Amino acid sequence: MDGFPFSQDVRIRFAETDAQGIAHHASYVVWLEEARVAYLAAFAGGYRAIRKRGIEALTTAVHVEYERAAVFDDVLTIHVRCGEIRGARFRYEYVVERDGERMATGWTAHAIVDAETQRPTRVPAWFVEDVVRAEASAGRSPA
Amino acid sequence: MDGFPFSQDVRIRFAETDAQGIAHHASYVVWLEEARVAYLAAFAGGYRAIRKRGIEALTTAVHVEYERAAVFDDVLTIHVRCGEIRGARFRYEYVVERDGERMATGWTAHAIVDAETQRPTRVPAWFVEDVVRAEASAGRSPA
Amino acid sequence: MDGFPFSQDVRIRFAETDAQGIAHHASYVVWLEEARVAYLAAFAGGYRAIRKRGIEALTTAVHVEYERAAVFDDVLTIHVRCGEIRGARFRYEYVVERDGERMATGWTAHAIVDAETQRPTRVPAWFVEDVVRAEASAGRSPA
Amino acid sequence: MDGFPFSQDVRIRFAETDAQGIAHHASYVVWLEEARVAYLAAFAGGYRAIRKRGIEALTTAVHVEYERAAVFDDVLTIHVRCGEIRGARFRYEYVVERDGERMATGWTAHAIVDAETQRPTRVPAWFVEDVVRAEASAGRSPA
Repeated sequence: MDGFPFSQDVRIRFAETDAQGIAHHASYVVWLEEARVAYLAAFAGGYRAIRKRGIEALTTAVHVEYERAAVFDDVLTIHVRCGEIRGARFRYEYVVERDGERMATGWTAHAIVDAETQRPTRVPAWFVEDVVRAEASAGRSPA
Repeated sequence: MDGFPFSQDVRIRFAETDAQGIAHHASYVVWLEEARVAYLAAFAGGYRAIRKRGIEALTTAVHVEYERAAVFDDVLTIHVRCGEIRGARFRYEYVVERDGERMATGWTAHAIVDAETQRPTRVPAWFVEDVVRAEASAGRSPA
Repeated sequence: MDGFPFSQDVRIRFAETDAQGIAHHASYVVWLEEARVAYLAAFAGGYRAIRKRGIEALTTAVHVEYERAAVFDDVLTIHVRCGEIRGARFRYEYVVERDGERMATGWTAHAIVDAETQRPTRVPAWFVEDVVRAEASAGRSPA
Repeated sequence: MDGFPFSQDVRIRFAETDAQGIAHHASYVVWLEEARVAYLAAFAGGYRAIRKRGIEALTTAVHVEYERAAVFDDVLTIHVRCGEIRGARFRYEYVVERDGERMATGWTAHAIVDAETQRPTRVPAWFVEDVVRAEASAGRSPA
């Protein structure tokens, strides 16, 4: 998708549906995380690399807008990009599609903390560089 | 809590924690729903009443801001109020506390649809009246 | 319930239902855990007490038999008892009822491990004593 | 894997871990379902085909034995086979591996019901034939 360097496909599990016969709205929050994790694995060494360096990423905000209901066994494509990096904080943006049709959009905000003290700490330079390079491949700059 | 007519307590399950040792951020979305369901049971006959009348409430947006991490076995108090009713849409607002300390805030947006056609339909008058009465008890007007 | 020293009520969340319109079968595994956690809080100082003493309880097996489907907003009563303690292992048994009607039964098996080494370690004497006393109140002996 | 006609890979999500730092035991129940759904899609037209023909498969029992703890981002291979078909009932068996090492085993039992009446109904001949053919490819007979 234009302006998004990465996407992750997710097939909706039966356990993720609800009695309205559709995917439960909380499931999307888990899928956004899966897409974010896959983005980081593709571009920045993955979450394990982050934690190996003594830092952790916390989620500080989640926002999802649901446009169309998805159902069991649908394959959703989650487009993800890093929207902004500033100090100890960064932000991801998402578009969820099914067969090219937009189903939902969202963003999540994150803070980097020291794994030991849990205090905010600047997003490390290597992380910024990796993400900037990834976003540049989609013609964007997250900074 | 001032300005909130209702609250629901939730004890954090072990299954709702994650490998960072805290409650996973997607769990809050489920708890907001539990609080909303309990609000409707207290004031508007509950979800069953809604569905019995041939309408359904869909979730169209979710927004959560996380301020402090909660852990296994914490009891969270979820304050909930109806923030707005307009046409086919309504909105809930939440403050999540632990022992009087604010842990998170959020809001959710909803649309009423006809259960059969899934088309948007005006929020029924009896629902508006019940909610307005509930909110008035907290000195508020959602309209 | 006869032969069970403890029970815990659980109200089925909308997020726990599935597109068959019933509570998803994996939800029961989470509820059994909630009941077990509440049992331990009532009788043996709770999971926090266990972990404070440098040990952890792992789940080594889960078994559930589903007899009747439960639906959104049902209140289930989960009767729980400690079925056996032997060496590093113990076992819980469950009966899930709705308004006195049996919905499901199950058992879970657990092992005590040293929190640091993750090696099996004998169930501590204080834990055995607390559980034996609890079970005796239901006219039973778990040993 | 010898004796198993099908396997499905699952990458452990962060949301599926717990505060012990491992995959929560209830997550396996969801993964077994995902593997079973994929088996049916590969061999018997999928769950949608089943429901299109006016029948539904209910889960009547779940059994999991956990041998080794798995962690975030592990890729698990879930080997699945149909263990038995008899009247209205069938049973699936599973072995969960990580890099060829056995992590867990399990089985699930199911009943076919008429989608409208929810009464047990014989497993349809086309379903039996499809499954028998699939299992024969692994040198087995589920009947």
